[in-house]
Amino acid sequence: VKYRFFDDYSEGVHPQLMSAIAAYNGGQDEGYGLDEVCRLARERIMARFEVDADVHFVAGATQANLIAVGSMLRSYQGIIAPTTGHIVVHETGAVEATGHRIVTVEAEAGKLSPALIDQALSTHHDEHTVMPTAVFLTHATEAGTVYTPEEFSLVVGHAKDRGLTVFVDGARLAMALGASSAMTPVAFASSGVDVFTVGGTKVGGMFGEAIVIVDEGLRRDFRYHLKQRGALLAKGRFLGAQFARFFDEDDLWLELGRRSNENAQRLSRGIEAIGLSLAQAPETNQVFVILPDDAAAALAADYGFHIWERQDDGHCVIRLVCSWATAEAAIDRFLVDAAAATDTPPVPSS
Amino acid sequence: VKYRFFDDYSEGVHPQLMSAIAAYNGGQDEGYGLDEVCRLARERIMARFEVDADVHFVAGATQANLIAVGSMLRSYQGIIAPTTGHIVVHETGAVEATGHRIVTVEAEAGKLSPALIDQALSTHHDEHTVMPTAVFLTHATEAGTVYTPEEFSLVVGHAKDRGLTVFVDGARLAMALGASSAMTPVAFASSGVDVFTVGGTKVGGMFGEAIVIVDEGLRRDFRYHLKQRGALLAKGRFLGAQFARFFDEDDLWLELGRRSNENAQRLSRGIEAIGLSLAQAPETNQVFVILPDDAAAALAADYGFHIWERQDDGHCVIRLVCSWATAEAAIDRFLVDAAAATDTPPVPSS
Amino acid sequence: VKYRFFDDYSEGVHPQLMSAIAAYNGGQDEGYGLDEVCRLARERIMARFEVDADVHFVAGATQANLIAVGSMLRSYQGIIAPTTGHIVVHETGAVEATGHRIVTVEAEAGKLSPALIDQALSTHHDEHTVMPTAVFLTHATEAGTVYTPEEFSLVVGHAKDRGLTVFVDGARLAMALGASSAMTPVAFASSGVDVFTVGGTKVGGMFGEAIVIVDEGLRRDFRYHLKQRGALLAKGRFLGAQFARFFDEDDLWLELGRRSNENAQRLSRGIEAIGLSLAQAPETNQVFVILPDDAAAALAADYGFHIWERQDDGHCVIRLVCSWATAEAAIDRFLVDAAAATDTPPVPSS
Amino acid sequence: VKYRFFDDYSEGVHPQLMSAIAAYNGGQDEGYGLDEVCRLARERIMARFEVDADVHFVAGATQANLIAVGSMLRSYQGIIAPTTGHIVVHETGAVEATGHRIVTVEAEAGKLSPALIDQALSTHHDEHTVMPTAVFLTHATEAGTVYTPEEFSLVVGHAKDRGLTVFVDGARLAMALGASSAMTPVAFASSGVDVFTVGGTKVGGMFGEAIVIVDEGLRRDFRYHLKQRGALLAKGRFLGAQFARFFDEDDLWLELGRRSNENAQRLSRGIEAIGLSLAQAPETNQVFVILPDDAAAALAADYGFHIWERQDDGHCVIRLVCSWATAEAAIDRFLVDAAAATDTPPVPSS
Repeated sequence: VKYRFFDDYSEGVHPQLMSAIAAYNGGQDEGYGLDEVCRLARERIMARFEVDADVHFVAGATQANLIAVGSMLRSYQGIIAPTTGHIVVHETGAVEATGHRIVTVEAEAGKLSPALIDQALSTHHDEHTVMPTAVFLTHATEAGTVYTPEEFSLVVGHAKDRGLTVFVDGARLAMALGASSAMTPVAFASSGVDVFTVGGTKVGGMFGEAIVIVDEGLRRDFRYHLKQRGALLAKGRFLGAQFARFFDEDDLWLELGRRSNENAQRLSRGIEAIGLSLAQAPETNQVFVILPDDAAAALAADYGFHIWERQDDGHCVIRLVCSWATAEAAIDRFLVDAAAATDTPPVPSS
Repeated sequence: VKYRFFDDYSEGVHPQLMSAIAAYNGGQDEGYGLDEVCRLARERIMARFEVDADVHFVAGATQANLIAVGSMLRSYQGIIAPTTGHIVVHETGAVEATGHRIVTVEAEAGKLSPALIDQALSTHHDEHTVMPTAVFLTHATEAGTVYTPEEFSLVVGHAKDRGLTVFVDGARLAMALGASSAMTPVAFASSGVDVFTVGGTKVGGMFGEAIVIVDEGLRRDFRYHLKQRGALLAKGRFLGAQFARFFDEDDLWLELGRRSNENAQRLSRGIEAIGLSLAQAPETNQVFVILPDDAAAALAADYGFHIWERQDDGHCVIRLVCSWATAEAAIDRFLVDAAAATDTPPVPSS
Repeated sequence: VKYRFFDDYSEGVHPQLMSAIAAYNGGQDEGYGLDEVCRLARERIMARFEVDADVHFVAGATQANLIAVGSMLRSYQGIIAPTTGHIVVHETGAVEATGHRIVTVEAEAGKLSPALIDQALSTHHDEHTVMPTAVFLTHATEAGTVYTPEEFSLVVGHAKDRGLTVFVDGARLAMALGASSAMTPVAFASSGVDVFTVGGTKVGGMFGEAIVIVDEGLRRDFRYHLKQRGALLAKGRFLGAQFARFFDEDDLWLELGRRSNENAQRLSRGIEAIGLSLAQAPETNQVFVILPDDAAAALAADYGFHIWERQDDGHCVIRLVCSWATAEAAIDRFLVDAAAATDTPPVPSS
Repeated sequence: VKYRFFDDYSEGVHPQLMSAIAAYNGGQDEGYGLDEVCRLARERIMARFEVDADVHFVAGATQANLIAVGSMLRSYQGIIAPTTGHIVVHETGAVEATGHRIVTVEAEAGKLSPALIDQALSTHHDEHTVMPTAVFLTHATEAGTVYTPEEFSLVVGHAKDRGLTVFVDGARLAMALGASSAMTPVAFASSGVDVFTVGGTKVGGMFGEAIVIVDEGLRRDFRYHLKQRGALLAKGRFLGAQFARFFDEDDLWLELGRRSNENAQRLSRGIEAIGLSLAQAPETNQVFVILPDDAAAALAADYGFHIWERQDDGHCVIRLVCSWATAEAAIDRFLVDAAAATDTPPVPSS
C-alpha cells in the first residue's frame, strides 16, 4: 500500500472533531444552520479573528468560492485572479457557471500584487469588457506560499484604493496563519479583507468551510445565495459543531495548521540532509523536491505524489503534501527510500 | 422547550450511521468519492434496487436536484413539474439559476399524471417556448402522498412514450417505498425511471443524497457536473460510509422510512381517537390535522409545527411531521395536550 | 396567396421610417448608439413622455425584456408575471436563461392586480424561495386588453408600496396608449413605472425597441448589460433614426398605434354587421371572433390567423390581428368571405 | 470634424444593400427568418461556399458569437481561444454569461496553432477542470492578420484530430478571404470548420451576421438558441435581404472585403512613401503605423484612431482602420498631415 503525499485530505477527521460531531448528535434543533452550535461557532470565529462579521458554514471549498464570488458581483462584473488561482484551474469553471468572467494575470508564486491589479484594470475601462470589481487572493496560495504581512497589506490596500472587493480563499488559511512570521488571525481579519473563507477540510474537518463576510453590504441576503446554490444543509449543526471545536480555547484550528507545516519542515530538512535539493523552501505544508526522473519513478511505486513540473532534461520537481496527520514514521521511511532511490547515503532525518 | 414536529431532520444522525462514519475514519484513502467505501455503497445500492446505474453521493437534496436536472437538459430545454414540486417552491430558483425553466402544472396531491404531462406539452411546440424534455416527480410527494404502483407505472410510461426523461426526487423515497402497498425498490427502479435520488438526510443521515443514474446516456461526464456545482467533496468517503450502512443487509434505509411512517400512523390513530379529524389519511410520515384556530394557537406554545392551510373560518389544517426518531412519549404527550386544547376527553393513543 | 392576419409584423417598414433610415445613411458617426441621431431620438422620447430617463435602443423585444429584467434582479431575485406574460409563454425561457425565476400568477385578461401581487408575495418570505422584487406588466397585454388608467394606477402604486420594481413590456405600447380612453404618454410615464419599453417593430419599425429607464438606480452600467447580451449594435444609428422619426412632431408612433386599433375596429364592426359574434370587444388591434369550426377551416384556406381557443363543441375563437398597414380592401374581402363561409348575408363593412 | 480611422463600421450602409432592403419592403411575409428572401440568402451562401449547411441571420457579431459558442458546449465544457480573441477581450464576458469558461492561450498575431491547442489540452484532463471541446479562431484576426491556407489547414486538422469543434468568428471574413493569396471561400468552408460566421456589418451591412453551421449535429434546435438569446427578429427579412444581395452574382460581399484591404494598401504605401514605418505589413484592412508621440498627438486633433501599443520611449503604434467606404481623399489628406506632423517631405501617395 502506498503512503499518500498527494494532498491534505486523504486522512479522515481529527479525533477531537469527530468527538464534537458526536457530542452534538442528541436531541432536536433548528435546521439550516440556525441551531445553537452554529451560533456558538460563529461567535468563536468572530472572537478569534476579533472581527464583526456574518459567518456561514458550507460543506466544500469550491462551493464556498462559487457562492462568495457570485454574491459579490453583478452580472457584468468580473474578478481578478492569478492564473494559478483555485477558481481558475481546479473548479471546472464553477465561477463562470454563475455567469462571471475571471480576469487572469500571470503571478509570481501564486500571489497578486498592486502592479498585477493595475495591469488587469488597465485593459478594462468601458462596457466592451467586463468590469473587474473584486480580487481573488489565496492564502496560503496554491503553490504553498504565503503573503508576507507587508505584501498582504500592500495588495489589500491597493485593491481597496481601486474600489475593489477583496476576497481571500482560505482553504489553507490555518497553514498560512500558522506559518513562521505570519500575520496573526486578528491582523489578517482587520487588513481590509471583505470576505474570507476559513478552511476546515484540509486541517482535519470532515466537510466544512466557513465564509466570513466582514463587509456589511455584502452580508445582505446571503442565505438566499447559499440556498440557491444548494449549500444550505438541513443538519447544518454538524458543520457548526466542527467549527465550534476548531475555535475552542485550545486554538485547535491554528494548531493543526501549524502541525501540517511542521511535518513539512521535518520532511524538507530530511530531504536536504540526504543531499537532495528543494525547488523552493517550504513556507507551509507543501514540499517541492527536485529528483532525477528515474528516482521519481522508483519512489512512485510506494508513495503517492504529483509530478509538479519539469526541472530540466533528466529531473523533475515532485510535490509532497504533509497534513496534520502525516505520520513521522512515513516521513522517515520516505527519506530512507528517497536516499536509496538516489544513491545518497541515508541520514537520520532529525 | 418545544417538541418539534416541523420536519424530519430536526434530529441528528441515527446511531448506526454515526458508528459507520466513525468506523471509516482511520487511514488514508482517495478523495472525491473515489474511495473504497463509496464503491461499496454504490454496489449495495445497485444490488438493493437490482439496477445497473452510476451512483454519486452529494451533501444535500437541493444540490442533488439542481445538478441532476441541470445535467439532463440542453440550455433551451425545460422540465415539467407540479406547482407543488420542491424545485418549484422550496429551492430559491436553483434550477432557474442553472438557466432552465420549470414548466409547471397544477397537480392533485402533488402528483403528475399523463393528462398533466400532455397539457404541458400542448403549449410547447416550437422555438418560441422552451422545449420540455423531462418530468420531475417527487416520491413521496411534498404533500406526503405516494404514487400507487399503477399511477407510477402510468405516468412514467407515458412520459417515456412522449420521449421525456423521468427524474424522481427521492428525498423521502424511503418513506414512499416503506408505505403500505408501495412498490418494492426493485419495481420502482425498473419502472423506466431515468434518474432518481435516494434521500439519506430525512431518514437519519448526517448529510447525504445519492443520485442514481439508470439511463446510460445521462451518465456521461456526470462528475464534471458535480464538481462545477461544488458538490464533489474531498472527504466524500463520509457520504459513502452512510450509504454503505443504509444498504447493509439489515435494510436500515427502508426500515427507517417505515419507522417514520409508523410514527405518523401512531399519531394519526391517536388524533382520531381523541375525536379530532384528519384532513387526509396519512400515507407516509406527515399528518394533517384539522384544528380550531384557538387550539392550534394553544398547542403552538409547546410544539413546533406548520400551519398548512385554512380549512374554514374557524379552523386550520396543521402539518405534523414524524421521523424515525420521533419519541413515542412525545406523540402521547401531544395527544393529551391536543385533547385538552380542544376540550375532548383524553384517550390513550394505542 | 393568403392575406395574413397572424400578427402585426408581417408587413415591412413604414415608408416614413424607411426614409429616415436612408436619410441617416451618409457620412461617419460614432458606433454603438453614441451617435447624433440616437441622441436626438432619446431627447424626443423624453420630451414626448415628459420624463427624465436613460433611453437605450435594441433590435428586438425578447432581447429588450431579457436584458431589462435581468438588469433589475440580483441572482436570487425573481419577477412576478401573469401566466400569459410574453416572458412566460413566448420567449423560450430567456429570462430563466439569465438565471432568474418568473413567479407566475393566473390573471384575468392578462392583467396583474394588487391582489395577484399580494398572492405571489404571500408564498415568498424567506431564503427557501426566490425573492420577488419586480413585477412584469404588459401594456397592451398579450390578450389585446389595456389597463384602464385606474387599474394601472392601482397596480403600479401597490407594487411600489410593496417595494417592487415596476417593468412594463411595451411591445404594443403605441396601441395601448392609442386606445380610446387611454392614459396619455405623460400620465403613463409618470405613474411610477421604473422601466418600460417602447415597441417599434409592431408599429412599422424595421427592428427596434427602446428601453426607457426612469429609476435612477437602475440606470447604472446599463450599457454593460446591453453589450454582454449582444445587444449593442455597431451601427446603432439605424435604430436611433427610426425612433427619432417615430417621435418627431407629427407623433407618428402614437398615430400608427391608433391606426392599428382603427383597422381592428373596422374589422370588428364588420364582423358584427354580418351577424357573427366577437369573443370580446377589441380594445386594441386584436379581434377575437367566434366561428363555427367549418367556417374557420374554410377561411383558413385564404387567410392566415391563429385559432385562439375552443369556444364550445362546434365553435372556436380565432384571433385576427390588424396593423397600421392592414389594407381596408383585405378587411372588406375577409368580411365577404366570412359571411359566405357562415352563410350570413353580406353587409358592407362601413 | 475628424475623419474616423477608428473602425470599419463608422460609415453607414452600402448603397446596393440599402436598395436591397428597400426592395423587400413591400407586402406581407413570414416573420422570424422564415421568409422568402432569407431562404434565397441561405441558398446563395451555400452556393458561394459550396457547402451544405444551416444558415441563420442575427443582428450583431457578439450575439452571433455567444449563441454559436453556447450552442456547441455542454454546461461543463469550454472553448479554447487566444487571449486576443474577440470573445475574450471585447464582449463583456458574453460567453461566460452563458455559463462557459474560455480557456485562453497566448498566441502570436492572434492565431491559434496545433501547439497552442495541445498546450491548452495538456492542463485539462479530468473533472476538476472544464473540458475544452471547441476552439475559437478569428479570420481575419483581431490583429488584422490572416491564417495562410497552410496554417489554417494545420490548425483545423489538428483540432479535428483532437475531437474539438472548430468555430470561426468571421466578422471580417470578407477581408480575410479577400486578402492576397487567401483561401477561396470554397476552400475555407471545406477545411473542416464546423461553424463559422459571415460578417456583414463591417463590409457595409446595416446590421447582420450569418451563422453557418456545417456540422450536422450542431444544427439541432438552433432556432431555440436564437430565440432564447433574443436574436430571432420578427422582421428577419431585412437581414436576409442584405445577405441575398451580398451573395448575388457580382460577389459584392467579397468585393467589399477586397476594397477595404485595398484602401489599407493605399494608405500603407503612402505611409512608407512619406518615410514612416509600419509596425507590420498590413494583411487586411488595418494599418499599424509607428509614430513619434508628438506626431500622434498632433494627428489626433483631426483624425480618429486608436493608440495600439507603445513602441519605445518616444514612439507609439497607432492603428488605422480602412473600410470599403474610406475616401481616397481622406487617405491622401491624412498622409499630407502625417508628413507635416513628422516633418517628412510630402509625397503623393500613389
